[in-house]
Amino acid sequence: MTTSLSRDAAASDLAARLLEGDRLALSRLMSAVETGRDDARRQLRCLFHKTGRAHVVGVTGPPGSGKSTLTTRLALEYRAREKTVGIVAVDPTSPYSGGAILGDRVRMMELHSDPDVFVRSMATRGVMGGLARSTLDVVLLLDAFGKDVVLLETVGVGQDEVEIARAADTIMVVGVPNLGDDIQAIKAGILEIADVLVVNKADLLGADRLVADLRAMLQLGASPRGSWSPPIVRTVATEGVGVSELVDRLGEHRTYLESTGVWHARRVESARRQVRAIVEDRVQRRFERAAANEVWQARFEAIASRDDDPYSVADEVLKEVSSNG
Amino acid sequence: MTTSLSRDAAASDLAARLLEGDRLALSRLMSAVETGRDDARRQLRCLFHKTGRAHVVGVTGPPGSGKSTLTTRLALEYRAREKTVGIVAVDPTSPYSGGAILGDRVRMMELHSDPDVFVRSMATRGVMGGLARSTLDVVLLLDAFGKDVVLLETVGVGQDEVEIARAADTIMVVGVPNLGDDIQAIKAGILEIADVLVVNKADLLGADRLVADLRAMLQLGASPRGSWSPPIVRTVATEGVGVSELVDRLGEHRTYLESTGVWHARRVESARRQVRAIVEDRVQRRFERAAANEVWQARFEAIASRDDDPYSVADEVLKEVSSNG
Repeated sequence: MTTSLSRDAAASDLAARLLEGDRLALSRLMSAVETGRDDARRQLRCLFHKTGRAHVVGVTGPPGSGKSTLTTRLALEYRAREKTVGIVAVDPTSPYSGGAILGDRVRMMELHSDPDVFVRSMATRGVMGGLARSTLDVVLLLDAFGKDVVLLETVGVGQDEVEIARAADTIMVVGVPNLGDDIQAIKAGILEIADVLVVNKADLLGADRLVADLRAMLQLGASPRGSWSPPIVRTVATEGVGVSELVDRLGEHRTYLESTGVWHARRVESARRQVRAIVEDRVQRRFERAAANEVWQARFEAIASRDDDPYSVADEVLKEVSSNG
Repeated sequence: MTTSLSRDAAASDLAARLLEGDRLALSRLMSAVETGRDDARRQLRCLFHKTGRAHVVGVTGPPGSGKSTLTTRLALEYRAREKTVGIVAVDPTSPYSGGAILGDRVRMMELHSDPDVFVRSMATRGVMGGLARSTLDVVLLLDAFGKDVVLLETVGVGQDEVEIARAADTIMVVGVPNLGDDIQAIKAGILEIADVLVVNKADLLGADRLVADLRAMLQLGASPRGSWSPPIVRTVATEGVGVSELVDRLGEHRTYLESTGVWHARRVESARRQVRAIVEDRVQRRFERAAANEVWQARFEAIASRDDDPYSVADEVLKEVSSNG
């Protein structure tokens, strides 16, 4: 994708190179965004008006539901339909391996060889709160890069993950039969934000029951998503079964969003969430900078020995964090 | 637990009543803390110097590992040893049921009838970030109430959950055989903070392999927790097998913490985390208040239509959020 902007900018400008379709520039900007470098913010500001065209599809569900396999199959199906694809995988990391463990890393490697697919695995290690901000930024970069579809894969557990999933235009929740009570609880927690439900491993005994349960829960929910009634799609991701139908349903949801004005309403809501993520991220950075100071260290010591209390100290930290821009 | 403070305070003072051992006052203060009421903050400030005696044990692990059952059994074992127990369960909630779903709610009910056990299930629905702050506050309330042991049960997935687990003095990570690749990834993500490892459902085929894998990972980790070498305990929580040994190990860890000074160091670190949680919580509240304003709504609209960008708006919101105390 070449634009006039790229000719105006200096050759070294990563944003301009990204707009020219330079994958290395895209990759470098993603790293800059993840580490929170100041120049990344400037580049993002320049790129923002080039975003908003991609269909961002959240793929979320409990561990073991086969999200990675399904994401890979979805990407292949979109490619077969001549759509370009970005994949953002938000996975817990191992402190031992030093990188994200993806269950389907090998299968995803197939996609890596396709120049119209870009896969990014987010490092969640050591990040707190900043993950939401950096994930949203990485999605924007793929959008600016010109990807037609961005698949955003998250474990559907935990508030940060649900917050990230909410950034998608279409939220797909993946369930799987027979995962036990805890899993059902989690599924229930994210059901309210589901636009499309998937029962994966639908060849397993128990799939019919799960479909029936989901249908019952959706009816209880009294159409939480406006006039859209979330379809339930059965898939066997390992075999590719149901994936084509799933892509059809995702497309129908996009059509629904655009034809009803929900698309815009949801993007306004996304804007609010993104602003909040940026604000929180900055407050956290300032806090970490302030907390390294020995004066504050002494206050934390005083709290530990119960000579001070965290509520009073927080009041003072907040003042300091607010004042140093 | 009756103190002189309670005689000085007004009868209506929840903090004073809590210190007198009034369970209803404890319960009401927990609700006040969860909803973030301003008077809760004042009461917490008063109670803080009464805290620091409880042994806070984090029970964390992937969904399906049997954490709730294990927590229940641990509580029963502590009671058999004449320790008073508080349980804080941080679980995803269902928007349909309107309350937390606990896999072992029924079994936990047994504990409810014991006056020396207090069980609190945290509502995670709709909370963002504030969960860490309110969970830490609830643990402090149980500590001030005089509980010897506080069991803090969290799903070991997601950053908020790991952040909450870190508030414990002793972090117990529960694994279970044969849960598939995704689960292994999660386990790896929290292994670095484990003080005691549990292989639950140790009667299943695959338990030996999991123990061996965990041992190998611990060796790779090069003693991440100082001179303490995390023991691996096998349990069958549903049968109570291994629970007594587990309580012994948890006790040994506390002895280790106290004898090495790590106890204090860790509480200083906890103080820092708690101050951060309070600061973040206040920033979020102020943000939500500001964002409801129609001026900011118009800015979010402008972002959605790409006439403005979230980074610039965040700069301005941050100024406003900082200035209104």
